[in-house]
Amino acid sequence: MSDSSGSYSSLYRKEKKKIDRILQKAFFKREPVSLYKPVTYILDSEGKRLRPLLVLLSCMAVGGKFHSAYNAAAAVEMLHNFTLVHDDIMDNATKRRNKVTLHIKYDYNTALLVGDSLLAVAYEYLLKDCDGNAKFILSSFTKGLVEVCEGQKMDMEFETKKNVNISEYLLMIKKKTAAMAEMCCKIGAALGGGSKQQKNALGNFGLNLGIAFQIQDDLLDITAEETEFGKKIGGDLMEGKKTFLFIRALEESRGSDREMLLKVIKNKGIRSNQVKKYKAIYKKLGVIQDAKDEIKYYTKKALNSLKMIDEEPGKMLHWLAESLLKRTR
Amino acid sequence: MSDSSGSYSSLYRKEKKKIDRILQKAFFKREPVSLYKPVTYILDSEGKRLRPLLVLLSCMAVGGKFHSAYNAAAAVEMLHNFTLVHDDIMDNATKRRNKVTLHIKYDYNTALLVGDSLLAVAYEYLLKDCDGNAKFILSSFTKGLVEVCEGQKMDMEFETKKNVNISEYLLMIKKKTAAMAEMCCKIGAALGGGSKQQKNALGNFGLNLGIAFQIQDDLLDITAEETEFGKKIGGDLMEGKKTFLFIRALEESRGSDREMLLKVIKNKGIRSNQVKKYKAIYKKLGVIQDAKDEIKYYTKKALNSLKMIDEEPGKMLHWLAESLLKRTR
Repeated sequence: MSDSSGSYSSLYRKEKKKIDRILQKAFFKREPVSLYKPVTYILDSEGKRLRPLLVLLSCMAVGGKFHSAYNAAAAVEMLHNFTLVHDDIMDNATKRRNKVTLHIKYDYNTALLVGDSLLAVAYEYLLKDCDGNAKFILSSFTKGLVEVCEGQKMDMEFETKKNVNISEYLLMIKKKTAAMAEMCCKIGAALGGGSKQQKNALGNFGLNLGIAFQIQDDLLDITAEETEFGKKIGGDLMEGKKTFLFIRALEESRGSDREMLLKVIKNKGIRSNQVKKYKAIYKKLGVIQDAKDEIKYYTKKALNSLKMIDEEPGKMLHWLAESLLKRTR
Repeated sequence: MSDSSGSYSSLYRKEKKKIDRILQKAFFKREPVSLYKPVTYILDSEGKRLRPLLVLLSCMAVGGKFHSAYNAAAAVEMLHNFTLVHDDIMDNATKRRNKVTLHIKYDYNTALLVGDSLLAVAYEYLLKDCDGNAKFILSSFTKGLVEVCEGQKMDMEFETKKNVNISEYLLMIKKKTAAMAEMCCKIGAALGGGSKQQKNALGNFGLNLGIAFQIQDDLLDITAEETEFGKKIGGDLMEGKKTFLFIRALEESRGSDREMLLKVIKNKGIRSNQVKKYKAIYKKLGVIQDAKDEIKYYTKKALNSLKMIDEEPGKMLHWLAESLLKRTR
C-alpha cells in the first residue's frame, strides 16, 4: 500500500483539478449572472472534493473508466455545496473554509436561491452521465438528498433536546453525512457497470467510511493542532454541540464532571478559555479513546466491504480510507 | 364544449381530491416529525392543483391512463410548493392562501428545510412513475426546476432595476411560471406514451397557457372584485411590482401620468388609497385592454398547439384553458 501512496496522492490531486474545472465550467455562461456568479463563489472554495473522488474510485473499482463518471462526480459536489450553503444560513455561520459565507458576502435571499440552483444543476449534471441506469442512479441520489435533509433537521432538534443518546446520534450522522458517501459509491459503481452485489458492497463502504469520517470530525475538533486544523479548537463545545464525545462523556460522567457537562447544555456552549478543562474531562472519562476505537471500527467495517471488490481496481479506495483515518484536519 | 363543462368540473374536483390524498399520504409516517409535519401544513393549503391536473390531462391527451401519472402529478405539486415556501421566505410574506406562511407559523430554518425536503420527495415521487422514460422525464422536470430558480432571481432583480422592458418581463414569467406548466404537460405526455411530436405540442400548450396565466394574474390584481379575489386589490402596485400592466403603462405614458408611475418605482410602492388613481391611468393608457389581448393571444397559441392532439382525449385541456381565461381569482 505505502509504495503506491505517492502515486495515489498525485492521481487524487490531478482528478481534483479536473473536477474543479468541470464545476467552474458548469456555471460559466449561465444567466442571470446575479444567480450564477454567487454559485461559482461557493464552488471556488478550497473543498477537498472527497465525494466526487468516491464516485470516480467506485466507478474504477468495478472496472469502469473515470470519464463515464465525471459529470456525476461534479453533481455530488454540487449537492454537497447545496447543503453547505443552506446549512450556513441555518447556523448563521460567518466563515466557511476561511472565506466569508455566501449569505454574508451576498445576501440571505441570494444564498437561499444559490442553494436551490446548485441542487437543480446537480440533477442536470447527474443526468448527463445516465442512460439505461437513470432510474437507479437518480433514485440513489434522491435518497441521499432526502436523508441529508432529515439528518439536518435531526441535528437542529439536538440543539434544544436535553437527552440525546448514541444511537440517535449515529442515526443523525448516518443521514446527515454518511448517506451521501454511500450514495456517491453506489452511483460510481452503477456508472462503472457494477453488479448489484458490487453496488451494495461499495454503498456499505461509503456508509461506514462516512460514519468514521464524521466521528473523526468530532474528535479533531478537540484533539487537533490549531495550526493544522485551520479553525479554533473546541468549536463544537463552544457552540454546545452534541457530538459523539459529548454524548459519550455525559453517559459516563458522575458528580462534578457531570455538572460541568450539564452546564454546556444549560448555557448552550462554553467560553474558549474553558475548552482545556473539558478536554481533560473527556480524557479522564476515556471518551477520546472511545472515539478513536469507534473510528477504527467503522473504517474496518468499510474496508471489509471491499473484500468482494477485485483487489487491484479497489486499492485506491483502501488508500483513501486509510488516509482519512490519519487526517489531521 | 359547454355541454361537457359540468362533467369536466366534477372530474377536476374528483381528481383534485385524489391528488390531495396522495400528497397527505406521502408524508404521513416519515420522520423526523419536526420536518414532515410542517410539510403537510403547506400541502394542506387550498391549492388549485392545476399543475397536477396538467400532468394528468396531458397523459390522457395522448391516450394514457391517469393511474400511470398520479405520483408524477403529486411530484409537480410538491415542486410547486417548494417554490412557494422559499419564495415566501424571500418575500417575507406573512400570508398565503389565507393562512399564515410557513416561516411565520414555524420558523425560518424549518421553512428553508421544508422547501428542500419538498423538492427531494418530489424527485422521489416522480421516479415512482418512471421506467424506460426516466431520463426524459427527469430531465424535463430538472429543466423546469433550473428555470424556476432563474426566473425567481430575475424577479428579484426587477425589484431594484429601473428599466424593465416587456421582453425581459416575458422571459422572466416564462422561466418563473410557464416553464413549469410546460414541464407538467411534457411529463404527462411522456407518461401517457406520447410521441416526440405530441410531447412537444403539449409542452407548447403548457408554456403558452402558463404565460397567459401569469399575465392574467397581473391583470386580476387590478381588475378583480375584492370579495371574489380573496386578497387586496392593487397589491402588486402597493409592493411596486413590475407587472405586465405597469411595464406597458410606463412605456405608453407621458407627462404627469409618467411622473405618477415613476413615483411607484422611486417609493417602492404606493399606499392602498392610491390604487384607484393608478387603475384610472392604466385604463386611460389602454394597458388593461393590452393585457386582455395578450392573454387571449397566448391562450389561442396554447389551443393551437392542441391541433395535433386527437380531439376527444384533448378536449378537457381545451376546457381547462378556457376556464382559466374566465377565472376571477
